[in-house]
Amino acid sequence: MTNMIRAEVITIGDEILFGQITDTNTQWIGTELTNIGIRPVRKTSVGDQADAILNVLQEAHQRADVIIITGGLGPTKDDITKKTLCTYFGVGMVRNEVALALVTGFFEKRGRAMTDINRAQADLPANAVYMQNDWGTAPGMWFEHEGRVYVSLPGVPFEMKHLMTNRILPKLGSHFQTPIIKHKIIRTVALGESFLAERIEAWEDALPNHIRLAYLPSFGGVRLRLTATGDDNAQLNRELAEQVEKVLPLIEKNVFGYDDDELETVVGRLLSEKNLTLGVAESCTGGYVSSQITKVPGSSAYFWGGVVSYSNVVKVNQLGVQAATLEQFGAVSEETVRQMAEGVRQALGTNVGIATSGIAGPDGGTPDKPVGTIWIACATANRTIARLLKLGQYRDQNIQLTTTYVLNLLREELLSDK
Amino acid sequence: MTNMIRAEVITIGDEILFGQITDTNTQWIGTELTNIGIRPVRKTSVGDQADAILNVLQEAHQRADVIIITGGLGPTKDDITKKTLCTYFGVGMVRNEVALALVTGFFEKRGRAMTDINRAQADLPANAVYMQNDWGTAPGMWFEHEGRVYVSLPGVPFEMKHLMTNRILPKLGSHFQTPIIKHKIIRTVALGESFLAERIEAWEDALPNHIRLAYLPSFGGVRLRLTATGDDNAQLNRELAEQVEKVLPLIEKNVFGYDDDELETVVGRLLSEKNLTLGVAESCTGGYVSSQITKVPGSSAYFWGGVVSYSNVVKVNQLGVQAATLEQFGAVSEETVRQMAEGVRQALGTNVGIATSGIAGPDGGTPDKPVGTIWIACATANRTIARLLKLGQYRDQNIQLTTTYVLNLLREELLSDK
Repeated sequence: MTNMIRAEVITIGDEILFGQITDTNTQWIGTELTNIGIRPVRKTSVGDQADAILNVLQEAHQRADVIIITGGLGPTKDDITKKTLCTYFGVGMVRNEVALALVTGFFEKRGRAMTDINRAQADLPANAVYMQNDWGTAPGMWFEHEGRVYVSLPGVPFEMKHLMTNRILPKLGSHFQTPIIKHKIIRTVALGESFLAERIEAWEDALPNHIRLAYLPSFGGVRLRLTATGDDNAQLNRELAEQVEKVLPLIEKNVFGYDDDELETVVGRLLSEKNLTLGVAESCTGGYVSSQITKVPGSSAYFWGGVVSYSNVVKVNQLGVQAATLEQFGAVSEETVRQMAEGVRQALGTNVGIATSGIAGPDGGTPDKPVGTIWIACATANRTIARLLKLGQYRDQNIQLTTTYVLNLLREELLSDK
Repeated sequence: MTNMIRAEVITIGDEILFGQITDTNTQWIGTELTNIGIRPVRKTSVGDQADAILNVLQEAHQRADVIIITGGLGPTKDDITKKTLCTYFGVGMVRNEVALALVTGFFEKRGRAMTDINRAQADLPANAVYMQNDWGTAPGMWFEHEGRVYVSLPGVPFEMKHLMTNRILPKLGSHFQTPIIKHKIIRTVALGESFLAERIEAWEDALPNHIRLAYLPSFGGVRLRLTATGDDNAQLNRELAEQVEKVLPLIEKNVFGYDDDELETVVGRLLSEKNLTLGVAESCTGGYVSSQITKVPGSSAYFWGGVVSYSNVVKVNQLGVQAATLEQFGAVSEETVRQMAEGVRQALGTNVGIATSGIAGPDGGTPDKPVGTIWIACATANRTIARLLKLGQYRDQNIQLTTTYVLNLLREELLSDK
């Protein structure tokens, strides 16, 4: 087996430490490195202070073979990554003509005047290999220093992703000889972590040493991640497939997919295969179910649309819910959610309709129907099914869990052939 | 001035390093520590290996006064935080009776059988001060060791937040004497970072030393964060207010709010103040605009509902868009988006209607209307305004930017009194 290549990911910016922006970069970088067989061993965030940056670079040098740095490359005064890299490597700053031409072109194309701080974006540490950023004015940079590779990238996610995908990952792949790490993720829904663990305990205990299992809980489900390390690609894939085959009978009803599958992509595939169209009626989820479904490219092939019926007037006029039903049972009731699912199916002329109605919180609860009381339904040509959820008191969580459960109800109905 | 209390936040879990889950905890913890005057100096993620955890604990001991550790407390075999803390502190594990009663009660309440791995959740390192978790079976723990405070919390976000808010933050506040750090964030929209920087350069250069400025770009806007450090609360607040007053005339049109304000909360406030109701018609944003609006607790007071009109049939039947308009100008056109905004206003009976229609990508572009061509509109009792956006090629980004811009268009219309 070849040596394990270790990576450290460093994020620079006070805004990360102070919690003022969400860092989505390191998650994405972790996935991409793992996929090419480089093992992330640490992720670190430090502030915009030169000494903090110098310290973490020195430490990372001891721990890792490749050090990926994001952030601190913007045009403004608080961005100090390039200066600090000059200090760290003991080099000066040099204006890069290719980078300058790119920055100039970027501003010309948009018909905007260029400023000195924009021009300075083409100044790079003298030992940098310039990695062209097609989507912005901050440069990508590659350094080789005392047997380590350092990569510096802008913190803007789509610029970073473009540089990693098109420039850095291919270069890392050819620079290092990497061992093979294979992951297989089993996506489960509607079964808690400890119950899942009990059910598959014997199988887990019998896993060979080079295959590890992790439980990754998320809203309404758990991802079971198998990680196999070795030097034979085909054999690792075979072994992972065998393990999945062994565990599947124990949890089959709760498995909705594998790896990158999401409930919205799985139900999208099922709808496409069966040539069915979908309409969505949402009350407490407020558009979140529709927005999850339409995150999927090409979803317009099966998703015709939705109605967010926050007010009862909209439930009556757009979905045909009967005023008497609302009067007698209330908006949060089995009767109403059934009429919503059937109503959106009819109003939009789709084959299937799903619906949500509940009390997301924090206000609006009663002793009979506390916050977290939520009904979901699915209506097909043959039948309508409704389920009651008893969730917690947090609005965001209730919205996300309800979305998971109503998509899972839809999945079950599509599979049941009823 | 009192001494700066430094914090380090450590996240434990291979799943974080490998990018298989999104870490939202450290952002939240960073904000909360900053708010009580404790300065986060580093954030670190390490894997589920005892040596990696021991190393980072030893390092953090050198750098920080308080070390907050999340993750690795679940009931399953890959969770090793407690064992490793025993090694680090040189203590054994002791079953905590209060914790056991809580775990037992948790299972009884749900009518579920308890397992040995659940029972083991009540075993704590002998030097731990038990911090009761009301929302789950994993414990919170507080340690004092060689002049440092260590806190260990479960990684499940709502359990962690509950423990931090109700137990840890109050205890940290009374344990340390903290200096005062005040933040003021100015939220801007629709002006790029470098143009903003040019416009406020003279003001920025004149800031006193104890007030720092950071530019935090996000979708469609930039947050300007002022950070003031000192020991007089009232004086810091006064100085921050003065600086805001100075910079505001330079960027007033682009400022939509301060601190935690979001466009959806600001338009919600404006709608409430003016006693107006809102309906939303979405094509390319697929429900995302409605879901952002309804994230706000109490939004049902002004948001009546929305129609996600992905198919043209829904545009015609639910929103009253004319078939001839769709035929002549296409779904992505000024004419259509105007009829959508006016149509949803009429169909739902609201005072104001907003609409989006465009090509989010990755497919569906034409030479005339490439991916990223998006129309937005706002209809009031007095007039309808439409705008063309020329965005990029990334679906997620187009959906988010369009949502920002249509909420900003609504904000401008609500302020214009037209």
